[in-house]
Amino acid sequence: MTTRIDPRDLPGRPCSLAAALKIVGDRWALPAIREVMLGNHRFRQIAKNTGAPTDRLAARLKALVENGVLERRPLPDDGQRQGYYLTRAGRELADVTSALMSWGDRWAVTSPPVRMRHKDHDLVVHTVCGVCGDTVRNTDVQREDITPGWTAAGFEEPARS
Amino acid sequence: MTTRIDPRDLPGRPCSLAAALKIVGDRWALPAIREVMLGNHRFRQIAKNTGAPTDRLAARLKALVENGVLERRPLPDDGQRQGYYLTRAGRELADVTSALMSWGDRWAVTSPPVRMRHKDHDLVVHTVCGVCGDTVRNTDVQREDITPGWTAAGFEEPARS
Repeated sequence: MTTRIDPRDLPGRPCSLAAALKIVGDRWALPAIREVMLGNHRFRQIAKNTGAPTDRLAARLKALVENGVLERRPLPDDGQRQGYYLTRAGRELADVTSALMSWGDRWAVTSPPVRMRHKDHDLVVHTVCGVCGDTVRNTDVQREDITPGWTAAGFEEPARS
Repeated sequence: MTTRIDPRDLPGRPCSLAAALKIVGDRWALPAIREVMLGNHRFRQIAKNTGAPTDRLAARLKALVENGVLERRPLPDDGQRQGYYLTRAGRELADVTSALMSWGDRWAVTSPPVRMRHKDHDLVVHTVCGVCGDTVRNTDVQREDITPGWTAAGFEEPARS
């Protein structure tokens, strides 16, 4: 990532969710990243398959390159032209895109437009803790706010002694 | 969900990711949902803790209620007033918010502003397949497009016989 965000500079709660959305929260960012994940590296393909206006898409792809999510490299079949490829940060967005797709399948669409298969069965995305392997339940998770004054409830000026 | 989206009506690829973003892709939607998840049910708290402009936040919360992600209910300590609560669809966004937070911690911020603990250890969000329990690797996943003409590469008019 080229420039990282100091979470205390965000409006409201210092939060990595809000910081992530500064980078990938634009309307066309995740659809564009989806296309690159699917192997579509050319601007023309990304524009057609997202339906994004080309001027907005160009600006967004530029920002994603600047933020280290995408990088430009020569296309293997056309060394004269540069395509868009995922960096490691971009590849690690796969958990975000699959969580959104899975939620969309369940709650946003009339009927899922794509069937995702995992090995020999349907894919069911499920979040576990990588340390213990257990399903992550809200009741087992505790937040420890690191920024002084902030708690789950909000900000309160730390008491002065 | 009040009105579901026919994925064929979306611009570009018929895709549940794009459908999900139509509902939660606005800049302030997920930060607002984060606050409700943290137990902040009052408009005033949500506005303060997200830093969202109140007019935009009011419009966004209204849309989230219309789309069945949030619902209004009387506040337990102030029955005269209505607060915002998660519906089942809203609660199921927890995988999306935790994937974004975790990505943000790794790639977007100078230093994580919150430490997430799971039972007696740090929480490491990890995506597995709910059917077989294995880590989801790109190479083990296959897409089967259901909408005629669409493949991973894009749209091609189906051949007519």
